[in-house]
Amino acid sequence: MGTLRVPEVVPSPVEDSETLMKAFKGWGTDEKAIIRLLGQRNASQRKKIREAYQQLYNKSLIDDLNSELSGDFRKAVILWTYDPPERDARLANEALKSRRKNLKELQVIVEIACASSPDHLIAVRQAYCSLFDCSLEEDITKNVSLPVQKILVNMVSSYRYDKEVVDNSIANLEAAKLRESIRTKKLDRDDLVFILSTRNIYQLGACFECYKQNYGYSIDKDIAKSWGRGLLESILKVIIRCIQSPEKHFAEVVKDSVVGFGTDENSLTRAIVMRAEIDMMKVRGEYNIMYKTSLDYAVEDDTSGDYKDFLMTLLGAKI
Amino acid sequence: MGTLRVPEVVPSPVEDSETLMKAFKGWGTDEKAIIRLLGQRNASQRKKIREAYQQLYNKSLIDDLNSELSGDFRKAVILWTYDPPERDARLANEALKSRRKNLKELQVIVEIACASSPDHLIAVRQAYCSLFDCSLEEDITKNVSLPVQKILVNMVSSYRYDKEVVDNSIANLEAAKLRESIRTKKLDRDDLVFILSTRNIYQLGACFECYKQNYGYSIDKDIAKSWGRGLLESILKVIIRCIQSPEKHFAEVVKDSVVGFGTDENSLTRAIVMRAEIDMMKVRGEYNIMYKTSLDYAVEDDTSGDYKDFLMTLLGAKI
Repeated sequence: MGTLRVPEVVPSPVEDSETLMKAFKGWGTDEKAIIRLLGQRNASQRKKIREAYQQLYNKSLIDDLNSELSGDFRKAVILWTYDPPERDARLANEALKSRRKNLKELQVIVEIACASSPDHLIAVRQAYCSLFDCSLEEDITKNVSLPVQKILVNMVSSYRYDKEVVDNSIANLEAAKLRESIRTKKLDRDDLVFILSTRNIYQLGACFECYKQNYGYSIDKDIAKSWGRGLLESILKVIIRCIQSPEKHFAEVVKDSVVGFGTDENSLTRAIVMRAEIDMMKVRGEYNIMYKTSLDYAVEDDTSGDYKDFLMTLLGAKI
Repeated sequence: MGTLRVPEVVPSPVEDSETLMKAFKGWGTDEKAIIRLLGQRNASQRKKIREAYQQLYNKSLIDDLNSELSGDFRKAVILWTYDPPERDARLANEALKSRRKNLKELQVIVEIACASSPDHLIAVRQAYCSLFDCSLEEDITKNVSLPVQKILVNMVSSYRYDKEVVDNSIANLEAAKLRESIRTKKLDRDDLVFILSTRNIYQLGACFECYKQNYGYSIDKDIAKSWGRGLLESILKVIIRCIQSPEKHFAEVVKDSVVGFGTDENSLTRAIVMRAEIDMMKVRGEYNIMYKTSLDYAVEDDTSGDYKDFLMTLLGAKI
């Protein structure tokens, strides 16, 4: 369940567009009005608002948000206003085009591939092709080197069966194959890649459970134990985490973004924007269990101004 | 361009359903009426007829065709009546579940992956999951052994960019990589698999062209020269052929199905049903060039009765 709060009575997309235009016009921008409006509409409502705005004013809402807002607030509102597949295609592209290609950049691709529905992943690949004149896989091949490239290409190419069908003998057999890959330090072996990219998430859950029972360590701990902390093993751990428990993964992303001195606004925005409509309630719960403190408090404490108000609105606060 | 002929004035789906019901009823089935009707409707019209039939009579048109018709004729009409993604998902499943897994069976998977639009391929994967309780990739992994398994899983997972964007330096570079894989007899090398499964078909066309210019042989001849006639190289040749020229591939399928004593009705039906709405005109042209004889004549000569009439109708004949 998400944390997004949609009012019981929602104005028409045309009324919403007019409210937004009013907020843009005049002396200064009325950021609070924008937050109250866009921060309380779901994806299909936002889509209709984008369309109505374009029809009414013959210009793009995204472009106007871009010229009226600024900083982290602007980035968050714009990401939220995109259609989710377009948003994720843009996030993936940004990661692939960034100079540094470490875990912090590339994990968004794993999130799209392993913590989204199969149909959402397909929609992201379609959006990527329309936006960037090549496929997501091609851009991964171009911008990421082996062996991480191989894992990522296979992950984004998956279209998992989405119902709970589990075969325990396969789970056992494939736990052994995973173990063998990890033991022999061949983390890009075809069978490991195939298992992680073709099996449904329930089957993989059973497989990871067998792994723990049969070999005494959870698979992600075993990867860390046998290996160092290189990019390949970090990516594999995020893959496993996103398949096992996306809410734990996103709780970690939020925690990592606020921990220490300074805030990683890009990661914080991404986590909240991506999950506010999906499972942010669960992410909040996991955060509480994992860190014995409140996610909302952490966000409130580490951010300020309109940016803070917008994120808190997505987390269900009334501003 | 296809060979399917849709009449200028088409009855409503309800009228068509009533005509079909009339053809099923009474003393014997009126096969000619069924051929004239279904054999002259495009995919979206057939879909509406299926829906109208279900609504009118509370039973499935496919089931009724199944109980009213027989033999190769039945199989052809039913394949034609399915929604194309469902049809292809069923053909792929039949291939994977067949006892023999040689080129003749498995090439349908290559056709779906490499001679269809990217969106059609996605729709087939979605249909496969709804029909068979697992993903197409999982069933390939289960039923086909390595190294062919690896090639097929990667091919069906592709979502190629579908516009004509070609980078000649990449074409040159990747021709060299393909050459290296073929020279070292490692036809399942990651880079070969990646190139064939992620690049758009225009880029691959340029790459195969470079191959020929730089190394003196076309890539498929080079595979045949360096290798024997095993399943892996046969599959690779079909992949290359389907990417370069689907019409040549399907002309070959038709030819192989009628050549010699006896007819391979399954292959013949598949080729005509799959391409009648897409590029059968071109297939016919290629057939003429390749075999100096007419495809229509070959089909007419090798088939008979209602089956012949139905195939000829799909090829544009008036019966």
